[in-house]
Amino acid sequence: MAKVPYRIYLSEEEIPKNWYNLRADMKEPHDPLISPATHEPLKKEDLYPIFCEDLAAQEMDYTTRYFPIPEEIREFYKIYRPSPLCRAYNLEKALGTPAKIYYKFEGNNTSGSHKLNSAVAQAYYAKKQGLKGLTTETGAGQWGTALSEACAYFGLDLTVYMVKTSAQQKPYRKAIIETFGADIIPSPSDTTEAGRAILAKNPNTGGSLGCAISEAVEKAVTSDSCRYVLGSVLDQVLLHQSVIGLEAKTAMEKYGEYPDIIIGCAGGGSNLGGLIAPFMKDRLDGTKNPYFIAVEPASCPSLTRGKYAYDFCDTGKITPLAKMYTLGCEFLPSPNHAGGLRYHGMSPTLSKLYHDGYLDEARSYEQTKVFDAAVFFAKHETILPAPESSHAIRAAIDEALKCKQSGEEKTILFGLTGTGYFDMTAYMSYLEGSMTDYIPTDEDLQKGFDSLPKVE
Amino acid sequence: MAKVPYRIYLSEEEIPKNWYNLRADMKEPHDPLISPATHEPLKKEDLYPIFCEDLAAQEMDYTTRYFPIPEEIREFYKIYRPSPLCRAYNLEKALGTPAKIYYKFEGNNTSGSHKLNSAVAQAYYAKKQGLKGLTTETGAGQWGTALSEACAYFGLDLTVYMVKTSAQQKPYRKAIIETFGADIIPSPSDTTEAGRAILAKNPNTGGSLGCAISEAVEKAVTSDSCRYVLGSVLDQVLLHQSVIGLEAKTAMEKYGEYPDIIIGCAGGGSNLGGLIAPFMKDRLDGTKNPYFIAVEPASCPSLTRGKYAYDFCDTGKITPLAKMYTLGCEFLPSPNHAGGLRYHGMSPTLSKLYHDGYLDEARSYEQTKVFDAAVFFAKHETILPAPESSHAIRAAIDEALKCKQSGEEKTILFGLTGTGYFDMTAYMSYLEGSMTDYIPTDEDLQKGFDSLPKVE
Repeated sequence: MAKVPYRIYLSEEEIPKNWYNLRADMKEPHDPLISPATHEPLKKEDLYPIFCEDLAAQEMDYTTRYFPIPEEIREFYKIYRPSPLCRAYNLEKALGTPAKIYYKFEGNNTSGSHKLNSAVAQAYYAKKQGLKGLTTETGAGQWGTALSEACAYFGLDLTVYMVKTSAQQKPYRKAIIETFGADIIPSPSDTTEAGRAILAKNPNTGGSLGCAISEAVEKAVTSDSCRYVLGSVLDQVLLHQSVIGLEAKTAMEKYGEYPDIIIGCAGGGSNLGGLIAPFMKDRLDGTKNPYFIAVEPASCPSLTRGKYAYDFCDTGKITPLAKMYTLGCEFLPSPNHAGGLRYHGMSPTLSKLYHDGYLDEARSYEQTKVFDAAVFFAKHETILPAPESSHAIRAAIDEALKCKQSGEEKTILFGLTGTGYFDMTAYMSYLEGSMTDYIPTDEDLQKGFDSLPKVE
Repeated sequence: MAKVPYRIYLSEEEIPKNWYNLRADMKEPHDPLISPATHEPLKKEDLYPIFCEDLAAQEMDYTTRYFPIPEEIREFYKIYRPSPLCRAYNLEKALGTPAKIYYKFEGNNTSGSHKLNSAVAQAYYAKKQGLKGLTTETGAGQWGTALSEACAYFGLDLTVYMVKTSAQQKPYRKAIIETFGADIIPSPSDTTEAGRAILAKNPNTGGSLGCAISEAVEKAVTSDSCRYVLGSVLDQVLLHQSVIGLEAKTAMEKYGEYPDIIIGCAGGGSNLGGLIAPFMKDRLDGTKNPYFIAVEPASCPSLTRGKYAYDFCDTGKITPLAKMYTLGCEFLPSPNHAGGLRYHGMSPTLSKLYHDGYLDEARSYEQTKVFDAAVFFAKHETILPAPESSHAIRAAIDEALKCKQSGEEKTILFGLTGTGYFDMTAYMSYLEGSMTDYIPTDEDLQKGFDSLPKVE
């Protein structure tokens, strides 16, 4: 076997031809989406006013194992994929570990993250259905950027409701989304009933993700030519993100490698779900037994401290209910929390796998520990990681140090979801020593749990 | 021949093993660096107080055709190279041109540009000589970022004198350089005699690149363990940057392609010189006849409106004199100029090639025309280009449109030197319609020419 290169690039032909639907191999399906009014399971037709039809069908399909990736989407993927699988030789050396560390790097595109993998797919299906445009919300801005790229490519209008404080604090993110031709509306706005109601009550509010979702959904459902799209949590998103894991597995196989430990950061679960998908298949098939670790912020600990319960997918309580690990849809991480991974819940698929013991471990870190790892990684691997991705780096380093202690030559794979070029404010507060940690108290969490809907 | 993929990635083994020194094949050498005091040609030993010895030797070597790339540098290159050669299928389609457009994309590393190619080399040789650290200046910040990455990797101290107004206006650039462990000193500072003298005269000055160079050089020459490094203009830099052209040529050859037109943006010349090097060899050897175009801002037109004369390499008039196309070392582009490409002179090698007619054409564009091209490119190729790189995009689009008129299927290659993630202020002013153009008048230029030293 040849020496593994620093960067393994598959060829264009090796970009997956199918997405892999992990639900088809799960021992038990996760509980279905239900109506918040009747608590009855939803049918795909119930989703048509919100999502375009192909995506609604993907969302509800628990049995089709492989979905062919349409040629138009593969053509777009070829612009920025396959993404490199990287061997972290320099990090290994700096740690003095016998472990072999790999990371799948999804940051080499202008959105700066893996979000583009699903944005392209969602924009394509909207175009195919003859829609004119899409609406979405964005907080940190990676999803908004990814979707604006995809919509520019397919010639779709895009309206992004951006949390007003984010739009003010991150003018560069706003600018990059506008460069791709999307309209940004700081939320709450006077363009929707939801926005006007909130403004009437509180004219000076800086907005919230929940409010932005409400506005984006309202804008979509009140239009015939427009639908709403979401960048994480949903099964359709995990399906699209399976390209991450499929490529990683193919690239490792070329060098006779298979991971002993697979690590991903987890907010809504899009990256982790995509990365682990084909490896989890091996686990479910009984052919391999990798160890899976989900890493989340101590300030937003849905898997490690949440409840496995039905909850709204949004803070505004207008979406269907999903069974998932959740902190309650009214939970908000403390204001000192930097970067993403601030979602109150977790992908229903990942929640079920965790609940059933297939996703082996969930682990949380305080953010200063995460930034220690980020800066160490940057100096040795020369990539400036996103705060989100750095949660996975932290865990990978800790696992590699355990190997150093034990002398085990484990093979570690983690997801490096993106770059931190638009997160320099957080890096600055870390470098200046002004970054603080906050672990919610049980009382803090109880307030969130009190917002859970009552479902028998 | 197989269909050309969207992105051509060479393998790790195909990273060049040698840099190519274009001077070895020039019909006539360019005029040597001379002492500002005696006007005598300099010997390499004269440069030792400023540059480390191997780099001084490279600077003065007009005859060695190939310099082996040390293994330690190739190991670093493997972290982010080979960079992709991209076929701009989407741009071609959007333009409706029969031209085949390729671009060599150097932006997929944290410095965001090709600057890292020479930063790594310069840091390596400093380490090899047993030096403790390096000094440099930075304006826009790409060079400072690249060098901070390289110094972190090789374990060297780095002091970056950053123009005070830049440090204030670009806190994120400052932060990223500090993340890699470098010290940033806003210039002018009280750490050097040059800085103290300027502050005594004008305590509230925002600084200038000339002043920052003076401080960085002073700091280096007054220390035994430290040397000064520069990211462009010098022949050593063009030598290191030849990896761009060497990789591009190999990648094109794989698909039976050879460019009819080669286009690069030109500030000090590091990117253009590196990109064209092996193709210019073919031209000088008489085996091929590609057409070379240098593109510069209308606001800083050294090739198109400058004089071919001996001049200082810095505004502070402390460096040796170089024979080059120059606007005079005291020339400053108008304050509305966005991005880099603001150097008063041009690489002596490129200047000589232009003067002798081998570099066929120099062309200048006003910046709003450049940003038109940047945004069009971003929407179709999904990469947000740096303002500097967008000068080359503008010319490539114009050449492709000429092909549309004439029906010629020319093959165009241009250098996409970097990404614009840290240039969103400029994009914002373009999007808002507040970006303006400025073409210096003959009177403006005369003031710069008046600063030229008198050399017989």
